[in-house]
Amino acid sequence: MTIEYATRYRQTSRIPAEPGKPYVIEKGEGDRAHLFGDLITIYAGGEQTENAFNFFTVEGPKGNVIPAHLHPDTYEVFYVTQGAVRLFVEDLEGEQQEKLLTPGDFGFVPKNCPHAYRMERHHSQVVGVAAGPGGTFERFFETLGAPADGLGLPREPVVPTPGKFATVPEQYDVRFLPEHQWRTR
Amino acid sequence: MTIEYATRYRQTSRIPAEPGKPYVIEKGEGDRAHLFGDLITIYAGGEQTENAFNFFTVEGPKGNVIPAHLHPDTYEVFYVTQGAVRLFVEDLEGEQQEKLLTPGDFGFVPKNCPHAYRMERHHSQVVGVAAGPGGTFERFFETLGAPADGLGLPREPVVPTPGKFATVPEQYDVRFLPEHQWRTR
Repeated sequence: MTIEYATRYRQTSRIPAEPGKPYVIEKGEGDRAHLFGDLITIYAGGEQTENAFNFFTVEGPKGNVIPAHLHPDTYEVFYVTQGAVRLFVEDLEGEQQEKLLTPGDFGFVPKNCPHAYRMERHHSQVVGVAAGPGGTFERFFETLGAPADGLGLPREPVVPTPGKFATVPEQYDVRFLPEHQWRTR
Repeated sequence: MTIEYATRYRQTSRIPAEPGKPYVIEKGEGDRAHLFGDLITIYAGGEQTENAFNFFTVEGPKGNVIPAHLHPDTYEVFYVTQGAVRLFVEDLEGEQQEKLLTPGDFGFVPKNCPHAYRMERHHSQVVGVAAGPGGTFERFFETLGAPADGLGLPREPVVPTPGKFATVPEQYDVRFLPEHQWRTR
């Protein structure tokens, strides 16, 4: 039995429009978005949890390190379920580390810590939770990138316009760090 | 490089005692607890997120359905990464559903919704997030059950004493429903 809902985010979503309702979503059928080469799939957001937390996956091809960034008010989980993902993170004293995460490995990035990652195998997948006392930020991906109807990775990278880059990140507690250097190797 | 910390919960933990510090934990090396036949592994708790959310895994053998319960102030995620898990959940109107979840499938249980699950294959694993505006409840498992030093499932089921059953659940926003019946089959 598959139920679809019209929500403020999608004309057809598997996430109920009304909070307080239990639900199940099969693999891949959450609210999907494309940003650069990645597919982001949202399974729960702030509306479902009184803004306590969200739950999403990020899938991508083997590729380049994503731009370094931080979140002034958001804590972030990286839990790898497929492939291999290299996590880069800097603590509040400026000390940097990088670590290759394989399935079952967990990384935690507190607020204000610069971080980035690189998918090191095709078909890698990361489970993410990103939230803090100020709320959740799961709709960042589709607002900077684009909502996606189909399944699978973007056929062509979805590159945001400069106008979006200038306005969207701040609305979702994301601060890009264009001058940042990873000195871990 | 492996760093261990003394925390209020463990003499040696991979979770830093000081919040605000980024960290990585390899598969299985979070704070472990045994409750009945299950192994619960905590990778992040309320201290790490200003009480916004937590992140843990539950592994178990193929077995019986766990006791029905609800959380008056906690939202809960069931994301299956290994095996097969049957989720039972009742909505606020009393309508019940059950669904077999396999890897990549997601279930969401809002506060006040009775629920239970049954591991339907040996070596099943569920990723859990359980939190709400009132905080997080990840230390429920080791308080009702027992902290575990070793890796792997309990050799013998860890059955709480009646005294613990009478006092611990309420402290962690858990309400067992001993009269509850699943009518889904």
